[in-house]
Amino acid sequence: MVDFDLTPEQQAIRASAKAFAAEHLTGARAIYEAAATTPGWEHQFRSTLPLYKNAVQAGMIKAQVPAGLGGLGGSLLDAALVVEEFYAVEASASLTIFGTGLGLMPLILAGSPEQQQKFLKPFLGSEGAPLASLVFSEPDGSANFIAAGAPGFGTTATLQGAEYILNGEKIWATNCSGWDDRGADLQCVVCRILDPNDEASDVDKARRQTAILIVTREDIAANDPAAFQVLSHPPTVGHTSVNGPHVRFSNLRVPAGNLLAPAGKGAEVIEMSFTASAALVGAMGVGIMRQAFERALEWSKTETRGSHEVMIQKQSVADLLIKIKIRCEAARALTWKAALALGKTPFGGELAYEAKIFGSESAVDCVMDAINLIGVSAYKQGVGLGHLLNDAVVLPIFDGGNVGVRRRQIEKIFMNPQYKPWEATFGP
Amino acid sequence: MVDFDLTPEQQAIRASAKAFAAEHLTGARAIYEAAATTPGWEHQFRSTLPLYKNAVQAGMIKAQVPAGLGGLGGSLLDAALVVEEFYAVEASASLTIFGTGLGLMPLILAGSPEQQQKFLKPFLGSEGAPLASLVFSEPDGSANFIAAGAPGFGTTATLQGAEYILNGEKIWATNCSGWDDRGADLQCVVCRILDPNDEASDVDKARRQTAILIVTREDIAANDPAAFQVLSHPPTVGHTSVNGPHVRFSNLRVPAGNLLAPAGKGAEVIEMSFTASAALVGAMGVGIMRQAFERALEWSKTETRGSHEVMIQKQSVADLLIKIKIRCEAARALTWKAALALGKTPFGGELAYEAKIFGSESAVDCVMDAINLIGVSAYKQGVGLGHLLNDAVVLPIFDGGNVGVRRRQIEKIFMNPQYKPWEATFGP
Amino acid sequence: MVDFDLTPEQQAIRASAKAFAAEHLTGARAIYEAAATTPGWEHQFRSTLPLYKNAVQAGMIKAQVPAGLGGLGGSLLDAALVVEEFYAVEASASLTIFGTGLGLMPLILAGSPEQQQKFLKPFLGSEGAPLASLVFSEPDGSANFIAAGAPGFGTTATLQGAEYILNGEKIWATNCSGWDDRGADLQCVVCRILDPNDEASDVDKARRQTAILIVTREDIAANDPAAFQVLSHPPTVGHTSVNGPHVRFSNLRVPAGNLLAPAGKGAEVIEMSFTASAALVGAMGVGIMRQAFERALEWSKTETRGSHEVMIQKQSVADLLIKIKIRCEAARALTWKAALALGKTPFGGELAYEAKIFGSESAVDCVMDAINLIGVSAYKQGVGLGHLLNDAVVLPIFDGGNVGVRRRQIEKIFMNPQYKPWEATFGP
Amino acid sequence: MVDFDLTPEQQAIRASAKAFAAEHLTGARAIYEAAATTPGWEHQFRSTLPLYKNAVQAGMIKAQVPAGLGGLGGSLLDAALVVEEFYAVEASASLTIFGTGLGLMPLILAGSPEQQQKFLKPFLGSEGAPLASLVFSEPDGSANFIAAGAPGFGTTATLQGAEYILNGEKIWATNCSGWDDRGADLQCVVCRILDPNDEASDVDKARRQTAILIVTREDIAANDPAAFQVLSHPPTVGHTSVNGPHVRFSNLRVPAGNLLAPAGKGAEVIEMSFTASAALVGAMGVGIMRQAFERALEWSKTETRGSHEVMIQKQSVADLLIKIKIRCEAARALTWKAALALGKTPFGGELAYEAKIFGSESAVDCVMDAINLIGVSAYKQGVGLGHLLNDAVVLPIFDGGNVGVRRRQIEKIFMNPQYKPWEATFGP
Ligand SMILES: Cc1cc2nc3c(=O)[nH]c(=O)nc-3n(C[C@H](O)[C@H](O)[C@H](O)COP(=O)(O)OP(=O)(O)OC[C@H]3O[C@@H](n4cnc5c(N)ncnc54)[C@H](O)[C@@H]3O)c2cc1C
Ligand SMILES: Cc1cc2nc3c(=O)[nH]c(=O)nc-3n(C[C@H](O)[C@H](O)[C@H](O)COP(=O)(O)OP(=O)(O)OC[C@H]3O[C@@H](n4cnc5c(N)ncnc54)[C@H](O)[C@@H]3O)c2cc1C
Ligand SMILES: Cc1cc2nc3c(=O)[nH]c(=O)nc-3n(C[C@H](O)[C@H](O)[C@H](O)COP(=O)(O)OP(=O)(O)OC[C@H]3O[C@@H](n4cnc5c(N)ncnc54)[C@H](O)[C@@H]3O)c2cc1C
Ligand SMILES: Cc1cc2nc3c(=O)[nH]c(=O)nc-3n(C[C@H](O)[C@H](O)[C@H](O)COP(=O)(O)OP(=O)(O)OC[C@H]3O[C@@H](n4cnc5c(N)ncnc54)[C@H](O)[C@@H]3O)c2cc1C
Ligand SMILES: [Mg+2]
Ligand SMILES: [Mg+2]
Repeated sequence: MVDFDLTPEQQAIRASAKAFAAEHLTGARAIYEAAATTPGWEHQFRSTLPLYKNAVQAGMIKAQVPAGLGGLGGSLLDAALVVEEFYAVEASASLTIFGTGLGLMPLILAGSPEQQQKFLKPFLGSEGAPLASLVFSEPDGSANFIAAGAPGFGTTATLQGAEYILNGEKIWATNCSGWDDRGADLQCVVCRILDPNDEASDVDKARRQTAILIVTREDIAANDPAAFQVLSHPPTVGHTSVNGPHVRFSNLRVPAGNLLAPAGKGAEVIEMSFTASAALVGAMGVGIMRQAFERALEWSKTETRGSHEVMIQKQSVADLLIKIKIRCEAARALTWKAALALGKTPFGGELAYEAKIFGSESAVDCVMDAINLIGVSAYKQGVGLGHLLNDAVVLPIFDGGNVGVRRRQIEKIFMNPQYKPWEATFGP
Repeated sequence: MVDFDLTPEQQAIRASAKAFAAEHLTGARAIYEAAATTPGWEHQFRSTLPLYKNAVQAGMIKAQVPAGLGGLGGSLLDAALVVEEFYAVEASASLTIFGTGLGLMPLILAGSPEQQQKFLKPFLGSEGAPLASLVFSEPDGSANFIAAGAPGFGTTATLQGAEYILNGEKIWATNCSGWDDRGADLQCVVCRILDPNDEASDVDKARRQTAILIVTREDIAANDPAAFQVLSHPPTVGHTSVNGPHVRFSNLRVPAGNLLAPAGKGAEVIEMSFTASAALVGAMGVGIMRQAFERALEWSKTETRGSHEVMIQKQSVADLLIKIKIRCEAARALTWKAALALGKTPFGGELAYEAKIFGSESAVDCVMDAINLIGVSAYKQGVGLGHLLNDAVVLPIFDGGNVGVRRRQIEKIFMNPQYKPWEATFGP
Repeated sequence: MVDFDLTPEQQAIRASAKAFAAEHLTGARAIYEAAATTPGWEHQFRSTLPLYKNAVQAGMIKAQVPAGLGGLGGSLLDAALVVEEFYAVEASASLTIFGTGLGLMPLILAGSPEQQQKFLKPFLGSEGAPLASLVFSEPDGSANFIAAGAPGFGTTATLQGAEYILNGEKIWATNCSGWDDRGADLQCVVCRILDPNDEASDVDKARRQTAILIVTREDIAANDPAAFQVLSHPPTVGHTSVNGPHVRFSNLRVPAGNLLAPAGKGAEVIEMSFTASAALVGAMGVGIMRQAFERALEWSKTETRGSHEVMIQKQSVADLLIKIKIRCEAARALTWKAALALGKTPFGGELAYEAKIFGSESAVDCVMDAINLIGVSAYKQGVGLGHLLNDAVVLPIFDGGNVGVRRRQIEKIFMNPQYKPWEATFGP
Repeated sequence: MVDFDLTPEQQAIRASAKAFAAEHLTGARAIYEAAATTPGWEHQFRSTLPLYKNAVQAGMIKAQVPAGLGGLGGSLLDAALVVEEFYAVEASASLTIFGTGLGLMPLILAGSPEQQQKFLKPFLGSEGAPLASLVFSEPDGSANFIAAGAPGFGTTATLQGAEYILNGEKIWATNCSGWDDRGADLQCVVCRILDPNDEASDVDKARRQTAILIVTREDIAANDPAAFQVLSHPPTVGHTSVNGPHVRFSNLRVPAGNLLAPAGKGAEVIEMSFTASAALVGAMGVGIMRQAFERALEWSKTETRGSHEVMIQKQSVADLLIKIKIRCEAARALTWKAALALGKTPFGGELAYEAKIFGSESAVDCVMDAINLIGVSAYKQGVGLGHLLNDAVVLPIFDGGNVGVRRRQIEKIFMNPQYKPWEATFGP
């Protein structure tokens, strides 16, 4: 039955996320910005370690593992509620937390029971600061990694005896290098497995080769230090405390049992991971729009800017508030629907991609509208909305950019002869 | 629990609306356009009489009266489902049907049990073609009818003995003049009741005077013919079969018992009527976007336009399809939420106004995008999308224009010190 | 020296265009709409014959032929001034006049002196109603007529002795069928010349085959009546008095001397014709925006809509006026620059395409903004802005649709390694 | 005669601006960002001192003073050319230079010959680093400083004998506190002069009181140090090397002869200053869009992102490039027209305000489009486009925000009964 009311359980999830955000995320920016004075971009990330530990203690990592696998995780909608609450307060420090969720996703979706039991373990406790990372993107671009006729990822693995030898460069993967640059506790590395027997060179070769290998801190420690190198921590415009290093694997050896998705299966698992995440990026956009609206509304109801009335009395100001609010509400409704639709219908991912595009692009626009509304005071660092803008800017371009990845995914769905436009709404 | 699945009952409602639309609405335009050759704009309207009778028989009028009052009506969401199905096929002929629903709304919301029993009766059967009309708009504008310090509506009534004497001009009210220009079966006329004892001239006077009077065909018949005159049937750009005449009341006498909402209560009842309708206009927009998407998708998957591939293979075309689809999905999700939110929270109307604005403006944009996508063939009458554009254009400007009425309503809500932005979503 | 002042000659051109528009175009719509009651779409077109004769007398046709070839024509900017003045008053009847200019363009650009002398003659006088037509578009699409690997136009010619035998279907060409459906005085028909000796089937074949043949009324009269047939006059959403028939050439024989552009040259000549026209469509958009602004401004300064002040006092209304005005001013400045840039630099067409895209899409948006501003009264036929919208809608999709043709042309320019983005502004 | 070609003199101006930018501005960001590591926002500003000296030597300050007053200055269009060249390379360091031009504007427009001779002097040489500042904005808002019934600026002056006593707080004025926080060489301070004899309290009182006082470094030095205090250097999101401090005047005494615009004249002089500057902000927007386009084009023609072709081959990418280019071209054409129109017609400022709005809002959108096009690599600091975005963001909100100031100015023009919409284009 169509309904928009949260269950008591969801109310509780939301309340605890809100409480966590209020307690731990509100002050996060002050902490990591202070750390920025030490040269070295990585210090901002590292300064969030205590906060991450709090998240672990509060069950925020465990909550990203399904209950069936030992976690506390609920539905994708539950996750979206948490994401909104966090992003309504603080984007950057939150992404470190959700990055672990994304990093675990391939394991959750495709791991064997043994793999799940072994590799999920560090993430089921309430202590420490375990990081996981989905290591997908490469410096030369990732949008076309399985495009017809494309060469495919530069990161490759070959089987030698009981080990895979991993080579290549990756960049941007959240949490990838870990707190100390010796690797996240768990990395799911997307690569091509080179099979000397596969001499065909068809347009689907890259897809056929794509696989996922697990790399743990222990694996890295067991190798020569040069086998895993952090080349740089590229400083970013926003989300400045996020770890997304440029790394190089040089003949890194991992046990054959670390093969999470074999050649030919990797692309699909990644696609599934990035479908769930799309809905969550929608929720990030909602959180940011919510913050922008709240701040602009509060401002409009209190500031007179030298006139005889508060600014909300001006229609131009009210019109901007309305524009922000409408997109926030529409994006939230769509995101919720997308979260519930996923997995229900053959092309259920469509709504998730749409929530991602709409939520992310609207978020940027809304923050910019809020800046125009507040005017020049919004240009101040700290009190202003500049940081929010800089955090928002990544939404359309990460998690698969809207131009190169997300729209292309929807396009492919539309092209499918089986596609029925309203199936996710009204059934087949 | 958050859910987007229709109940079996709603599936049935939707299925029967879809079936009705397929059977009766598909050919409607051909019928009323043929009637356009006879000079006189009213002939288009009149040519839809058989179709309207079908709607009565199929229970489509009764379905707009709540079950508790003898109808078959369900929730606002149920209504939105029907509206979408109809507008996905045909706008103009559908509006005549929904215009009766709007016309009954004040009676349903504010009528005394006696009034309801008496005046709803003609609309509870399965025969004939009873029309109701909410007669609100005036030639000189309606957006400010109760604005502080504004004169208020030009249509006024004075009590003389047991009768009200009604004077003034109205325009645009759907169904107002009835099939034969002698009046709809039921008109709810918004007017100011002039009270000779009220000599105050405060800024709220117009609001204090605003009332609603019922005028029936029988009332009109009991008066001199000149007491109710149709001055013109203004031809419109789209929705060309809709009856929205310019009429004049000249000393029309109606029984005092026809007073539906007394002075001081009228504005509120109208506001409530136009809040429910706002959500339904959202659904109209969804229907139109759905139609635009379906047609553009079909076109893109079959046309090659002289190239070696179907047009959906072109990213520029796909991008437009995606733009249309996203707004359609977002508008539907928002409309559904608005329909359910209404009446639940103090400012529940906000979402309905937002669904109206977003759905209506997106609909115009989407049809225009579909035209640009299809290119010059879309400019053909009939097969093209011109009619759809012309029908869509009214959505932002009727049912309270977005600029003068709808944004102003939201603005007022935002200004309220009690307003909590997310109450409709997360509760108080 | 950068300057925006018209020369006295241009002032005069503008003044006479304005005067012509005031005298002859103001009432045009009333005339051709009255003619619409007679079944048969062509009657609207024919009702503009007297007006067209006036245009001939006033030198408006001659003005579209360069002075060097016996006409009165000036620069492309002069032409843009006239187009704006006309479109600020009336679109549809004006297009018939400018359609002749477009129809003459290939002859002006590519005709031999003999061809020019012979075929331009009817257009240099001050009597009669000579029509020319650029016959390019085909029912199955024209955007890809020389795309790599595409089959090319369906209309073909083969040389038999001293004659070309023409076969195929065309549609939409303004003025194509003439006042009496026996052909415009001059048609420049784009076709492929089939050469039995050319057996290659490279991706450029369609381009290599494309040519332009002249077809006159006399040529048609010299053939069997069935050789030139008007299949239909497709009714359009706007520009309702324009002649743009679906026609069929069936073994129509024309003298070999009618070959205007030989195989391999046709595409280039068409491209050049449609480059000049692009700047003029920019001017059409400016004219329409100007009209929309003037009407909305006037309305805003006089209407109170039941409130205590005129509507321009409302910021929401003023903001819409400003939005319209800005795009009108920006489009005009860009159009003027494009008109002057053409032919000056290697990629001078770029600005013309941009003026076309910006002017056309802005025009549609501006009319829609004006409708939203005026509200429901804008929905009335005649006094409303619906006709203006319907006329505007064609701007982005004709003269080469923006999605399939115009953006693709710019894209090609950008791809050129020689391209310098600011050469048209600052020189090489 | 309408023309878009620069004169040889303008070509030279442009060439020298371009050369200066290439030599001195290209590396500016690296310099002032390095300075950011020292705590204290002002160090970024101070690190640009050598660059500013270069600008003085290169005549860039003198060029902002009219030739008639001893400078090298030319037309507003000449200035716009320089502004575009600078902003196409570097925004922040350029603004310091142009801020001096703005600071001198009131003196140029309204100073007595004696005042001009005396106070312009330091700005006519080729040595040192003289700064001027237009000190207008206040912490509590400036948009309504002369709005009907508004209190007016909080900064006030009273005449005591031969001196004015100045009190109040200002913020954001570029260059205001000078290189050493002891004041710019010249400040034009907008304030209200309190006249004990003026007891009227009409709605125009603030306007009647508004005046401009000159404050020099020497004036400040002649006072107690506490009379001019820098309260803070508010860090900003972009334009990070600009000096725009929060300052307080406490009984600062300046000679009566420093009165530049007397009470009742100040507002008009400010309005004129901010009209010329509006056109220049248009040019800033053009410069930023130009930079965004160049970088995105270059990227698109070289990057394959793992696919088999360069990105410009993708229509989605090309469409974004086109969108950016069109707005850049349209904004430039409009800005040039506005620069030439100023002062020619009664409402010539209209175009300048429109160029400001269009150029500034387009600039933000274009940079965001470029970011979406380039994708995640654009999020890198330095190589990315984040800084450009942050610099662009101020354009709509400074120099009079578009919402509170610029649209309101146009609105007022539209309301004027004498207003003729096309006078600036076609004459009266
Ligand atoms: C804060 C942050 C966190 C991140 N977290 C992770 C993470 O945890 N794991 C991870 O692997 N990555 C991560 N990334 C990288 C991110 O997921 C990128 O979106 C992804 O790498 C793809 O990049 P892209 O979309 O820009 O594609 P690219 O391949 O870089 O493409 C760039 C641009 O090229 C164009 N383009 C490319 N292909 C096409 C095409 N076929 N058609 C049309 N246009 C095309 C588009 O304009 C696109 O924007 C993160 C990035 C950031 C900034
Ligand atoms: C097909 C159709 C069906 C209709 N059905 C009905 C019906 O059944 N019953 C009925 O009564 N009416 C009906 N109408 C009329 C419709 O409901 C109108 O929206 C309504 O009359 C109000 O008109 P408006 O919004 O354009 O306001 P107006 O008062 O006409 O205002 C016009 C414009 O002025 C500006 N404006 C006015 N006030 C303000 C303000 N305070 N602030 C800012 N801007 C302002 C806005 O730009 C607005 O668009 C119908 C109309 C059509 C075309
Ligand atoms: C009033 C009026 C007057 C006209 N006058 C004339 C005239 O005088 N002479 C004349 O010959 N024609 C005339 N036309 C037709 C007009 O010039 C058309 O623009 C032209 O025929 C091309 O049509 P199109 O742009 O819609 O392209 P089509 O080939 O019909 O393409 C349709 C759509 O397909 C898509 N598409 C096609 N190819 C591509 C591609 N490669 N990449 C991406 N998308 C693509 C686009 O979305 C495009 O909109 C007129 C039309 C009208 C309505
Ligand atoms: C880099 C930089 C350089 C600057 N240089 C200078 C300088 O040299 N000299 C100087 O004096 N200042 C300078 N400023 C400040 C700048 O000029 C501001 O634009 C100006 O102070 C006005 O601020 P505002 O437009 O935000 O108006 P505010 O008065 O602060 O208004 C804020 C917001 O309120 C709303 N608002 C206010 N009034 C109305 C209204 N009547 N109707 C509708 N909405 C309204 C609008 O949404 C507006 O955005 C600079 C600022 C920056 C960041
Ligand atoms: Mg991308
Ligand atoms: Mg502002």
